[in-house]
Amino acid sequence: MRYVVIMAGGAGTRLWPLSRAGQPKQLLPIVGGRSLLRIAVDRGLALVPPENILICTNAAYIDQVAAELPEVPRANLLGEPVGRDSLNAVAWPAAVLAERDPDAVIAQLTADHVIEPLERFHAAMDEAFRVAEADPHALVTLGVVPTEPHVGYGYLHQGAPVPGYPNTVAVREFREKPSLEVARGYLASGEYWWNSGMFVWRADTLLNQVRQLLPVTYGDVIDLAQHPEKLEAIYPNLAKNSIDFAVMEPVSAGKTDAHVLAVALPIDWRDVGGYASLATILTPDGHGNSVEGLVANLDSTRNVIVNRGAAGHVVATLGCEDLVVVATPDVTLVVPVADADRIKELVAQVGGSVGAEYC
Amino acid sequence: MRYVVIMAGGAGTRLWPLSRAGQPKQLLPIVGGRSLLRIAVDRGLALVPPENILICTNAAYIDQVAAELPEVPRANLLGEPVGRDSLNAVAWPAAVLAERDPDAVIAQLTADHVIEPLERFHAAMDEAFRVAEADPHALVTLGVVPTEPHVGYGYLHQGAPVPGYPNTVAVREFREKPSLEVARGYLASGEYWWNSGMFVWRADTLLNQVRQLLPVTYGDVIDLAQHPEKLEAIYPNLAKNSIDFAVMEPVSAGKTDAHVLAVALPIDWRDVGGYASLATILTPDGHGNSVEGLVANLDSTRNVIVNRGAAGHVVATLGCEDLVVVATPDVTLVVPVADADRIKELVAQVGGSVGAEYC
Repeated sequence: MRYVVIMAGGAGTRLWPLSRAGQPKQLLPIVGGRSLLRIAVDRGLALVPPENILICTNAAYIDQVAAELPEVPRANLLGEPVGRDSLNAVAWPAAVLAERDPDAVIAQLTADHVIEPLERFHAAMDEAFRVAEADPHALVTLGVVPTEPHVGYGYLHQGAPVPGYPNTVAVREFREKPSLEVARGYLASGEYWWNSGMFVWRADTLLNQVRQLLPVTYGDVIDLAQHPEKLEAIYPNLAKNSIDFAVMEPVSAGKTDAHVLAVALPIDWRDVGGYASLATILTPDGHGNSVEGLVANLDSTRNVIVNRGAAGHVVATLGCEDLVVVATPDVTLVVPVADADRIKELVAQVGGSVGAEYC
Repeated sequence: MRYVVIMAGGAGTRLWPLSRAGQPKQLLPIVGGRSLLRIAVDRGLALVPPENILICTNAAYIDQVAAELPEVPRANLLGEPVGRDSLNAVAWPAAVLAERDPDAVIAQLTADHVIEPLERFHAAMDEAFRVAEADPHALVTLGVVPTEPHVGYGYLHQGAPVPGYPNTVAVREFREKPSLEVARGYLASGEYWWNSGMFVWRADTLLNQVRQLLPVTYGDVIDLAQHPEKLEAIYPNLAKNSIDFAVMEPVSAGKTDAHVLAVALPIDWRDVGGYASLATILTPDGHGNSVEGLVANLDSTRNVIVNRGAAGHVVATLGCEDLVVVATPDVTLVVPVADADRIKELVAQVGGSVGAEYC
């Protein structure tokens, strides 16, 4: 049977003070009042029924996730006691599902993006499911068709087409985040897709790869799936590994009995990682500003202004350019857009000098 | 007897959103928790007892002023139904005091400045009182000894010394705000002082000048002093005139039976008109920022950051330069220091587009 597993782990410091240690990015109301997790689950609900959706998140967020997703059974909310990187956040749910359903086929999705149009996403996922169901040696990754020479993503080098599946190819190689010059070459060649971090595979196929590449981790996650009461004992001791480095790259290099295929995702794919990307989903004000909430601007342009202050709070700017201004009831943030990728440093300073309760 | 009259009229839009239509600049806690009005009255209390202090303010602020100045008799708080410029705000209290005490001598002070050291201020005021008490034809103005070629102030051209008063001279001429080049010449010559807008005179001397120069206004303010119940009928119909243009300049040009003298004020005289000047009385943070309240800065310099948000609210900046950031419970303001003199325009826009309750 088909399942959807959604990873919703990180705190999302780059959207502080909207996101906090206790209010992670994926749970923020962010697009038309919906959270990124809610949006990701709604995407998944077009593929499988709610009882076939699992969420892997931080244990601290489980109650908030349960409130956000009332239709998902509580037993499907897996809470990591501590973050142990992406391999474990993928292998643990796979082991849980393999225990429940030996024929489980999993679409492993992220909750960091706005994806449009949904029809294309669902069509690509359906093709990826069919590929994985038909080939017990396939790890299927989803490759976003690039629209610009982005240097913030990894890339997939496309190999031979897979007969019978019009949008599926073998993956020749994974490529790390490139320089701008290299990225331009990738884009011009038409042979590269962005590594979306989304995958489809049979649970047993994935677990088989983990067994061959990381036998200790394999034993641990199987033990964990069979004995959930051992979570606190086992999870913190899992080795930290990323799914890309520990599994996808060695498999694509022929180190195991499987191979990596990729299905094209011809979608508009917007990472909502920080304020620059958040700006693309806020309301334009006609003067180049992206705004949310009660905002008054005079002679201000190219600003990202998010007002989530108390009811009736107004954010007013005059003569501002290229600034991020965020108002919340307990924190006001001002930072040039160009420095917004350093917010993590500021949060650390606030935590040290003012108080951890703001972080 | 000696009296002190303090003008506390304007709303102080340049300090919005700290100041509001209903919370004028002079009533804001601004220096060590004290308001500019409180500070001005404390300066006056070194010269006269509280029952000899009068405040001329907007009628809408009378209750706030009374709460701020419990020792000043309520009958000494004069509330203008509407602002009618400085001449009326000076002549009305003079008429009220002349009615109470035919020998009243008035020090007419402002509430817009931080003045240090107080000893010098008090010594100069005492000399000015003595000059006015001895010469019933003298309008005495206080001239701040300039420390820079300021183009935002009017200047006094010093004339002959007045025998017996070491710091007093005749005023040769009033000069309007000069160009920078002219101001540099004034400073280099040593012959010019800043026009402080503070004066000392006998009430009857001032009223005599008004009678000669503006007989209709004279009749109106005398009528008003004798019949306070006519306030609403008379005040709004007074002609708008400034004390400088309507009285000081013609008197200094010999148009009446009086003359203008000036006493030197060798003080540090800081106008708290807008954020640039407010910055000089806030706490320096060691990185060139002037801050008030809970503030965290990273790689930020030359900012003016005033946090008067709700209890526990934090203002955090990263990579900001030369900005004014003000947080209050209902308004957040961000404006480059260089644009801060245009805040009035922004307030007008907020009033129109968001609501007059924020102005």
